[in-house]
Amino acid sequence: MKLIQKPLEMIALTDHWRKQGQKIALVPTMGWFHAGHLALMHKARQCADKVVVSLFVNPGQFGPDEDLAAYPRDLNRDMQLAAQEDIDVLYAPSVADMYPAGFQTNIHVAELGRGLCGASRPGHFDGVCTVVMKLFSQSQAHLAVFGEKDFQQLAVIKRMVRDLDLTIAIVAYPTVREESGLAMSSRNSYLLEDEKKQALILYHSIIAAREKVQAATAPLSAAVLCQEIKKNISQISGCVVEYVEIVDADSLESCKKVHENSRLIMAIKIHDRVRLIDNARLLEV
Amino acid sequence: MKLIQKPLEMIALTDHWRKQGQKIALVPTMGWFHAGHLALMHKARQCADKVVVSLFVNPGQFGPDEDLAAYPRDLNRDMQLAAQEDIDVLYAPSVADMYPAGFQTNIHVAELGRGLCGASRPGHFDGVCTVVMKLFSQSQAHLAVFGEKDFQQLAVIKRMVRDLDLTIAIVAYPTVREESGLAMSSRNSYLLEDEKKQALILYHSIIAAREKVQAATAPLSAAVLCQEIKKNISQISGCVVEYVEIVDADSLESCKKVHENSRLIMAIKIHDRVRLIDNARLLEV
Repeated sequence: MKLIQKPLEMIALTDHWRKQGQKIALVPTMGWFHAGHLALMHKARQCADKVVVSLFVNPGQFGPDEDLAAYPRDLNRDMQLAAQEDIDVLYAPSVADMYPAGFQTNIHVAELGRGLCGASRPGHFDGVCTVVMKLFSQSQAHLAVFGEKDFQQLAVIKRMVRDLDLTIAIVAYPTVREESGLAMSSRNSYLLEDEKKQALILYHSIIAAREKVQAATAPLSAAVLCQEIKKNISQISGCVVEYVEIVDADSLESCKKVHENSRLIMAIKIHDRVRLIDNARLLEV
Repeated sequence: MKLIQKPLEMIALTDHWRKQGQKIALVPTMGWFHAGHLALMHKARQCADKVVVSLFVNPGQFGPDEDLAAYPRDLNRDMQLAAQEDIDVLYAPSVADMYPAGFQTNIHVAELGRGLCGASRPGHFDGVCTVVMKLFSQSQAHLAVFGEKDFQQLAVIKRMVRDLDLTIAIVAYPTVREESGLAMSSRNSYLLEDEKKQALILYHSIIAAREKVQAATAPLSAAVLCQEIKKNISQISGCVVEYVEIVDADSLESCKKVHENSRLIMAIKIHDRVRLIDNARLLEV
């Protein structure tokens, strides 16, 4: 595994690979690797000849009151973890190299980026799209692997790729969970032991909702189901609902009734300090 | 020369060319070809193995009160003209194929797109960047040739390419002029014979400014020179100045003094009906 930190060096290498006819996969990350990241790398390894894992804590997708400074970073730790996954390059550019003086371009995906996380994080998905486009260019990847954990991000990226006719395939990978059911997230490192237990309400809400949907004899009202979930979450000490919605998995528009393409999608804050998201399909096709 | 109208067909062909190791050049146009377009095609032919000329009157870059409906179109005429230039593909996609239902992505270049034409045409350069990005993807070009006639457009595109790390080279081609000096433009077809003579004030302003700058013994004040040009233009019957500025050719910021990288850049309206632009370097390096 090679560590590359300069965009021009990354592009020179992927130019070379492209000329050789190598198939390139990209796994974009913000580092502080957990089993979810490693699963994405493993998936990428199966799909391509060369695997680039990018590690960039992107200032462009953090709001002014968010956790950019606090976001966990440890390049040595991440290098050791990534090295276990047989990747070719860990690509960790600097902020100065990604956004040099004079940088002024922004990519905006309108409707899909507006609600859910977009409502409380204005500009977040613009920052995501713009940096992801840069990483696509720098890696010259044929495919990129994204986790379903960030479901709205996945939908927004797929839309950008389609709208801009990018010749890169987007591979979605299911959320990896801890044994308890808690969705893996670098932000879990902010949680104290007690809070980790409180955070399980997200997974328990998914399980309960699924059982209810699968037991129902007629399509359930999404609004009623969301209301129940919100009520249950707010009964957990320290948990505040940011949103709980049941949406169409492609358009991210609210469903009236739960259907086969419905997705439960949630964001909560624990002790007004740690923001967590989770999502899941409610009906198996 | 092959006519292609479907994006997927275009991508399939450029995929094939890429696999063969062919170097691809793109010439993006809105059609109604004149000698300026043909010169861009000729230039592209010298730079690449395969030349794609796109012809798309892009609704995304026209304002609601602009000349989208009136813009001259004649595919057969353009096919005959392009065929003389030994290009490989004339690519003329439909609006429905370029912007299918659900399309919602926008690329914005901030500072460079703000003043000059951007001031009177809000959203224009967003529309340009977005469609150009799509054409870059569809053509999978190694290089694209743009005319200096649309100087701000060229600066904005160069910035987008740099900011998004696109692996495409931008080749700038000097403005082609009629024998009279009038810059070639598809919009010249809107001009009556008398108006063509009035439009020459743009070229005459360039010549006069150049003479003044080259004769000066110390750097001239850009503001004073612009003021003189504006006064001269407004003396021509039916001509109204939209802007006359002397800017740095890279940043497009106003110059205080005329220097080697200064560019005179102008937009006027003739009889409040035809909008014309022109620009030129004032000092030879």
